[in-house]
Amino acid sequence: MQYFPPALEQLVEQFAKLPGVGVKSAQRLAFYLLAQPEEEAAQFAQAILAAKKSIHCCPLCQNLTEGDGPCPICASARRDGSTICVVADPKDVAALERSREYNGLYHVLHGVISPMNHVGPDDLHIKSLVERVSGGTVSEVIMATNPDTEGETTAMYLSRLLRPFSVKITRLAYGIPVGSHLEYADDATLMRALEGRQEI
Amino acid sequence: MQYFPPALEQLVEQFAKLPGVGVKSAQRLAFYLLAQPEEEAAQFAQAILAAKKSIHCCPLCQNLTEGDGPCPICASARRDGSTICVVADPKDVAALERSREYNGLYHVLHGVISPMNHVGPDDLHIKSLVERVSGGTVSEVIMATNPDTEGETTAMYLSRLLRPFSVKITRLAYGIPVGSHLEYADDATLMRALEGRQEI
Repeated sequence: MQYFPPALEQLVEQFAKLPGVGVKSAQRLAFYLLAQPEEEAAQFAQAILAAKKSIHCCPLCQNLTEGDGPCPICASARRDGSTICVVADPKDVAALERSREYNGLYHVLHGVISPMNHVGPDDLHIKSLVERVSGGTVSEVIMATNPDTEGETTAMYLSRLLRPFSVKITRLAYGIPVGSHLEYADDATLMRALEGRQEI
Repeated sequence: MQYFPPALEQLVEQFAKLPGVGVKSAQRLAFYLLAQPEEEAAQFAQAILAAKKSIHCCPLCQNLTEGDGPCPICASARRDGSTICVVADPKDVAALERSREYNGLYHVLHGVISPMNHVGPDDLHIKSLVERVSGGTVSEVIMATNPDTEGETTAMYLSRLLRPFSVKITRLAYGIPVGSHLEYADDATLMRALEGRQEI
């Protein structure tokens, strides 16, 4: 049964397709957009179309970028081209960039190996990574996949794959997060923090 | 600092404007849309534009409807035109219609009187309600605003405004919700439930 006009029902349906948005939330969002001025709604629609149309993967690092050329990070002359940091997701690039600690290049896999979700190595951007590493200009590959089972598996798989190229392969340090309490750290994290202890 | 391509940042911004959507959720939604096929994203954009373009207020009851004429409820010959149920919001019409109990017409105020939010009687669709009631065909007006302070105030204001027209003015019954437990009912609800007790 439809209690709203069809055009509104359709908008609610579209919102309800988004992850984590139920029917009630979708209704709230649709009503909010309806209450906005015409330009605002047009801008929203335009932003969707523009993003979908102009955003592609960088041909080098596979990170999201606009236009056809390499992304700003790959194109920058100020980045250290001898280091590649391998991440699962464009959001991880953003997180690492926020830390302002890393000055090398990235490689975005767009996922992790996950047999449960039918994602195998061929579904990820692994071939292009191997090509980049085999070029000979890379001296270090940092595995920065998430510290969960799938991220670990992917990092292990890649490190085995890249071993023949005689590059240094590293992994982000495990340990207790800065600003946290030992009391609340889980056993696995504490174990890794002890294992990885460093002289001060 | 922007770590995503501008078109993506703009889409994230648009999502983040929605009520209850923070930056992190907006990013998740934007990435989800980017991962969808082109048609899906185009459909979403189209739904926004179509809803915004085709949905207007019914000239009679002010409920949302498509096209210029009266809404399906006002246009229906099977509805009882002598009863008007006054609600704050189009969503309330949908809720009452779901109950399948009511067969009269509606009047949507599009808000409630709320001095805190600078909403006065002139900001609501009250004039058109008075016009409908003054027509003489209406015999009962049911106040179905929410049972909170603002809803009550609005109902009281309207009932005083409509008194001169010698129509029956009623209010939805207060009491314990069906399927709930007395144990968890709040004092005000229990008091009203006792006051409104009926013979069985």
